[in-house]
Amino acid sequence: MEIPVMSNILNKNDENAAALNAMLTSRGIFTVNLLGSPGCGKTSLLEQTVRLLKNEHTLAVIEGDLYTSKDADRLAEYGTPVVQINTRGGCHLDASMVKAALAKLDLATIDILIIENVGNLVCPAEFNVGEHAKVVVLSITEGEDKPLKYPLIFRQSEAIILNKIDLLPYTSFDMDAAICDIRGLNPQASLLQTSCRTGDGLTAWIEWLKTRASQTRRQANTI
Amino acid sequence: MEIPVMSNILNKNDENAAALNAMLTSRGIFTVNLLGSPGCGKTSLLEQTVRLLKNEHTLAVIEGDLYTSKDADRLAEYGTPVVQINTRGGCHLDASMVKAALAKLDLATIDILIIENVGNLVCPAEFNVGEHAKVVVLSITEGEDKPLKYPLIFRQSEAIILNKIDLLPYTSFDMDAAICDIRGLNPQASLLQTSCRTGDGLTAWIEWLKTRASQTRRQANTI
Repeated sequence: MEIPVMSNILNKNDENAAALNAMLTSRGIFTVNLLGSPGCGKTSLLEQTVRLLKNEHTLAVIEGDLYTSKDADRLAEYGTPVVQINTRGGCHLDASMVKAALAKLDLATIDILIIENVGNLVCPAEFNVGEHAKVVVLSITEGEDKPLKYPLIFRQSEAIILNKIDLLPYTSFDMDAAICDIRGLNPQASLLQTSCRTGDGLTAWIEWLKTRASQTRRQANTI
Repeated sequence: MEIPVMSNILNKNDENAAALNAMLTSRGIFTVNLLGSPGCGKTSLLEQTVRLLKNEHTLAVIEGDLYTSKDADRLAEYGTPVVQINTRGGCHLDASMVKAALAKLDLATIDILIIENVGNLVCPAEFNVGEHAKVVVLSITEGEDKPLKYPLIFRQSEAIILNKIDLLPYTSFDMDAAICDIRGLNPQASLLQTSCRTGDGLTAWIEWLKTRASQTRRQANTI
């Protein structure tokens, strides 16, 4: 009974997302849909990203959250343009929410846009929001069994970040098993290991972002 | 446009959940809906619970997961009856799924039933599954900001478990702030601190379960 309704919602969202994606590509704004469980470290990664990139790129951030502006407040301290979307209990962002948020940004000044989705490893994977790439963050404290338990989000992500590696010595996380499972689901994904506390692995993440941003800029120039 | 459909689904689920709840009460089976993010430690808590209670109580477990039986496999090793529900991508359990799973258990032999919901701090909070109590597990590695960011699940839970406290020295988790926020959302909830690795706090959790189970048994005897 639920399936036709859900299917219509997804089709309409995909249309909206495709239109947003075309607009963002034409402007050369590389756009990331940043995904992961509550507390996996999405906002901490964003803080480090803004700090490390702000002299070379002009970033903007859209923050998805159920009710609060806690994450947006953290990022606003870095002087980056941030727009808050509150879903009022909704479990994911959709393309129409992102479109409304984009109206509050000066797109002419931005070359990288990062959309932090609601903390949820399930629902956001089903809703494109106009992004060029999904990136999923998995905290190693969540356990190495999560990729196989939540496969869609790991299959769809172009980069997969194993975060909080500073806690590896204090957990039983099996890195080899995690990498093996992730590779089985998604052989092409860029696989990164980071700690936002120690800074480990952030250089590789920043390089990934820069490379993808320059690809989008070249694509815009050929349109 | 989505609201009327969603409202009908929730009403129908509440009816199903109320019927299940009445049946479970009449049989004296205390039933917990165990909630929390992916990797917060729900299954580890269940393993410890089964181990510590199996000589005094007859437990059964219903395991909700998107696709795998990883958690059910872990619990089956303890000799406890376990029924797997695979939601095939669905983000929460509902009462009809639990009703179907109950048909596979010998209810005459059970006095505590624990239903491990899909790892998700958002959607499962909206769907009763026949439980007497919701219990939410928050890993301290998720950060102290999560209660205010995901308030519904913390408001609705009768017990709130702060888990993985063995990792407190290696994180910046602010326990006082977490407790203050939780108390603001839900002054009545039992607030427990546990580590499934060291065993800290598990006695209090087991006592909570025993007390609530004996209340349900008394209620059954008066029907």
